[in-house]
Amino acid sequence: MNHFQHIQWQDGEWGFLKILDQRKLPAEEDYLLCKTLETLAEAIQTLAVRGAPAIGIGAAYGAVLAAQKLIHYPLQEWEKVFQKGLSDLRKSRPTAVNLFWALEQQERVFQDFISQDIGLRKEGSGEERVKKELLDSLLSKLLSKAKAIHSQDREMCQKIGIHGASLLPQKGTVLTHCNAGSLATGGMGTALGVIYQAVGEGKKIEVYADETRPLLQGSRLTAWELFRNGIPVKVLADNMAASLLSKGKVDLILVGADRIGRKGHTANKIGTFGLAILARHFNIPFYVAAPSSTFDLTILKGEDIPIEERSREELLFWKGYLIAPKDVDVYNPAFDVTPPELITAIITEKGIIQPVNEENILALLA
Amino acid sequence: MNHFQHIQWQDGEWGFLKILDQRKLPAEEDYLLCKTLETLAEAIQTLAVRGAPAIGIGAAYGAVLAAQKLIHYPLQEWEKVFQKGLSDLRKSRPTAVNLFWALEQQERVFQDFISQDIGLRKEGSGEERVKKELLDSLLSKLLSKAKAIHSQDREMCQKIGIHGASLLPQKGTVLTHCNAGSLATGGMGTALGVIYQAVGEGKKIEVYADETRPLLQGSRLTAWELFRNGIPVKVLADNMAASLLSKGKVDLILVGADRIGRKGHTANKIGTFGLAILARHFNIPFYVAAPSSTFDLTILKGEDIPIEERSREELLFWKGYLIAPKDVDVYNPAFDVTPPELITAIITEKGIIQPVNEENILALLA
Repeated sequence: MNHFQHIQWQDGEWGFLKILDQRKLPAEEDYLLCKTLETLAEAIQTLAVRGAPAIGIGAAYGAVLAAQKLIHYPLQEWEKVFQKGLSDLRKSRPTAVNLFWALEQQERVFQDFISQDIGLRKEGSGEERVKKELLDSLLSKLLSKAKAIHSQDREMCQKIGIHGASLLPQKGTVLTHCNAGSLATGGMGTALGVIYQAVGEGKKIEVYADETRPLLQGSRLTAWELFRNGIPVKVLADNMAASLLSKGKVDLILVGADRIGRKGHTANKIGTFGLAILARHFNIPFYVAAPSSTFDLTILKGEDIPIEERSREELLFWKGYLIAPKDVDVYNPAFDVTPPELITAIITEKGIIQPVNEENILALLA
Repeated sequence: MNHFQHIQWQDGEWGFLKILDQRKLPAEEDYLLCKTLETLAEAIQTLAVRGAPAIGIGAAYGAVLAAQKLIHYPLQEWEKVFQKGLSDLRKSRPTAVNLFWALEQQERVFQDFISQDIGLRKEGSGEERVKKELLDSLLSKLLSKAKAIHSQDREMCQKIGIHGASLLPQKGTVLTHCNAGSLATGGMGTALGVIYQAVGEGKKIEVYADETRPLLQGSRLTAWELFRNGIPVKVLADNMAASLLSKGKVDLILVGADRIGRKGHTANKIGTFGLAILARHFNIPFYVAAPSSTFDLTILKGEDIPIEERSREELLFWKGYLIAPKDVDVYNPAFDVTPPELITAIITEKGIIQPVNEENILALLA
């Protein structure tokens, strides 16, 4: 299978990030060249790149773009300017923990650099040559870290796939929601990675993909990448899942996650919670696939996870067409939180958590 | 409140049906002039007019359009041609029982006409004058019946509203799905009629309207008519209901119905069944409001209700934009069937059925 390289660092005088513009799929395959921090932050904010792991990878490269700005500032302002850049990236999506995690990694690289290399500053702080050398060294360290995060993610997807594939039947049908595929990660995906791996092992898997309103990541992205990879897929509107499950057409539900708390409360794309309730009603397994970096052990209960409320316009307009009275109010959260008692198992790169509870989560993450 | 006259018979040499084109709401208020059976059948098929009671009313007037054709045929072919017209109308939407019910009424008008008036045929069958007189008499009988069905529906809505309003709290929030409002009936609506009535009685009711993919009757129609009538309304995507209910923001769910079986199995817009499961999970009441003509006592179990599968294009395109890979398969049923055990009560013009079971249904309909 040909998993898409949708996030690529391009070398050059400064280097920049090339990302597949997912807002335009499936009609067009267009790339966005993010040469500044601002372009990338907007790309994350407007979901040109999306999916918790992919956002983390994008943000890690974003730290390189943030550091490129330092050339315009005196050394003593570097820390403040760099921190401001990271802070702008943090604001682009508030729910995905991978973004914070990746930026924390890059912040550590920066702090190590300051404590070790910045000693040079004392000797030649006024000289542009020294500043450029220092910056090159910093950029190189940040870029290495970003590439390491990217390739770790690829390996993680592979491991999640292997663990998860063991849960799939030899022949079966999976319902998924949103996009937890190669387009959401640096590798073959989390939930879809499990499917790719199972198919690679010779299992016969068919997929139903919820279209996932309002941004249609299911029909636009999941259906697109599964179709491209030759996996049988059917699209349904989100409200058709109960009808589908009642006909016994689905063996299990499998989704990704954006943040998972200490006890297993799982924030994922809006609609996930409803599917978990349906899975319980129809007595089929409900699996979550996510890297261990998705866990946030400071979260003790579902309400502690901040949920991004997105704009009215997402529900009022469609490609410029008005689809609701223009002054009407909306309820438009981007995520919901599924409680652990509705989750059959969480599949991570370190293994499978089942049943989902604090003890098993802490044991696996240890 | 100003309930919209969206179906109006217009007198004239032949007369025709003027209907508000609901496909264009909320952006435009445009009327479709149905001067032929074919235009009306297409209007029903493409949901320019929709909602089970409104389809029934439309079809009743459609029988008049079907009879207008008879002027071109010799008397001995009238029955065949008229039956063909009714049959074309029956094919326009297979699930709504009101359509069949209304056409059955008109078929009886036609049969009575044949057995009584057609005696004239023997005396002057070749004469155009006699034919025109006969046809005028038939058209007048069919039109009277259509108008009677229309005004009965208006009264039924009023009675459903009064019965249903007794179930609503003095102050509360209702979640509804699709459009079971004035736009779906000949009066103030079924589910929304209950809300209009409760508000008219001084209750403070707020409404959440599911957008209802793929045709968005919730955001386009329900939000439009509630907003127009000054009732506070918020729109949400279908997959956001579980999140909303989990926050305790909704006191009850209230929907319409397209066909209800002998034991209470309720076919309604796709997504209704999922909401009923959520209502049970979150322990809030789930009400169905529908006229007694919605009952089909020949239906003994959910699977007996024929469910219309609609076109792939509804899920693949949006106003000409591709939103899924163009060769992908879809699952696109227009309705689902909610079993009686998930329905708290059914509100009809004859009273409230609670609990929902065969005995109570037969008693109320008797």
